[in-house]
Amino acid sequence: MIDLTLIGIGTGDPAQLTLAAIRAMNAADLILLPRKGAEKSDLIAVRRQICADVLTGATRVVAFDLPVRRAQGDYLEAVQDWHDAIAHGWTAQIAAHLPEGGRLALLVWGDPSLYDSSLRIADRLRAQGMDLRVTVIPGISSLQALTAAHAIPLNALADPVVITTGRQIRDHGWPAQADSVAVMLDGGGAFQAIDPAGVHIWWGAYLGMAQQALISGPLAQAGASIVAQRAALRARHGWIMDVYLMRRETK
Amino acid sequence: MIDLTLIGIGTGDPAQLTLAAIRAMNAADLILLPRKGAEKSDLIAVRRQICADVLTGATRVVAFDLPVRRAQGDYLEAVQDWHDAIAHGWTAQIAAHLPEGGRLALLVWGDPSLYDSSLRIADRLRAQGMDLRVTVIPGISSLQALTAAHAIPLNALADPVVITTGRQIRDHGWPAQADSVAVMLDGGGAFQAIDPAGVHIWWGAYLGMAQQALISGPLAQAGASIVAQRAALRARHGWIMDVYLMRRETK
Repeated sequence: MIDLTLIGIGTGDPAQLTLAAIRAMNAADLILLPRKGAEKSDLIAVRRQICADVLTGATRVVAFDLPVRRAQGDYLEAVQDWHDAIAHGWTAQIAAHLPEGGRLALLVWGDPSLYDSSLRIADRLRAQGMDLRVTVIPGISSLQALTAAHAIPLNALADPVVITTGRQIRDHGWPAQADSVAVMLDGGGAFQAIDPAGVHIWWGAYLGMAQQALISGPLAQAGASIVAQRAALRARHGWIMDVYLMRRETK
Repeated sequence: MIDLTLIGIGTGDPAQLTLAAIRAMNAADLILLPRKGAEKSDLIAVRRQICADVLTGATRVVAFDLPVRRAQGDYLEAVQDWHDAIAHGWTAQIAAHLPEGGRLALLVWGDPSLYDSSLRIADRLRAQGMDLRVTVIPGISSLQALTAAHAIPLNALADPVVITTGRQIRDHGWPAQADSVAVMLDGGGAFQAIDPAGVHIWWGAYLGMAQQALISGPLAQAGASIVAQRAALRARHGWIMDVYLMRRETK
């Protein structure tokens, strides 16, 4: 039996760890750290540092290479194939390092519930017949790090919020029935598909990390700054993770 | 100058506290704890316990009576008046306990960005001329505690999520352009306004607390169980806080 704990670790600031996360890390026999290629080595370095900071016992920490999602072809098909490949990776690591079963933990960036594939990959392992129990420890998501850094609420008073992706904004424009829209997984500048009149944007990159960058303002002005700053930061650091909230004035 | 820190403390489980929250609590001169009446005394008891668990220095902890929102008349007007009254309460406590200025902290249930009024009340104090600096420490929200307890993702793969209120569901039905809808601040059973065909619901109350209750299933069956269970739990404990996620199968 594999007892898998998906541990939300926040967005890079070790102080975002919860006491429950620290407890779950120490309760694990094995923590698997995904390696996402040289240009994203900052991300594994953060996870290694967190392990060094909080582990006090016999938990083993093993890094493994995460497969790369193909950039061509149908997006959803590519994601499904990628999740299949990651599931094979997990299975191989479990066979190598926990052949008798045991407690496995994965450190999930942000929160395991929000635009993260770990729960879906765990489902694949169960579907393949693995005796797997899954526990989730919530973590601070990048959206919470964003609103905290700007000291703003996510929702306008008593109003709904849509959390969506850059792809959805490009394909469908501003979502109906909400004046607040949070955007994740944007490859860059999907807000350019939006009429900026009356829209305010709060943007953040590398939230919680030393490189943290914030821009806010009316979309008509701030949009171009964000596009330029994002390109410059990506060139400088080799990778970028960013997120933003837009709010439309209609009242 | 008042240096105000709004600290998200999660949903009642002290293990949901982040290291940053613990640090910010200990850095404060004063922590104000809102008293919400006898029937919600569990809530102040949790905050008192958290203070007792983590404070190591000279931070003072002072409870004050939170005004009550009137239940009659226009909802948004009643909320605005209530926020005005809370702002007066904060001002009086600050005058009494930090007359020379200093570091004030408030322990916010869940996360200060999500359906919480503290940031809006701080805006009122600034508008009234108080020299106020606001810092936000994010905390685990009830939605994250919900999805973690059920071990489910908030969003379907690459799809948007709407976070909304019971009131919005009653008034406007299922939000457009999203198959996943998370509902907060529901006085009870707003999902009864929804056609249950093809809808799954995951519900949770007192998340993270000893009284935690979970129900999930097809809305057509689970809806009635939730309404009955909610009424029974509310009668037993004198109060209830609950939240739920609904997902529609359309693909």
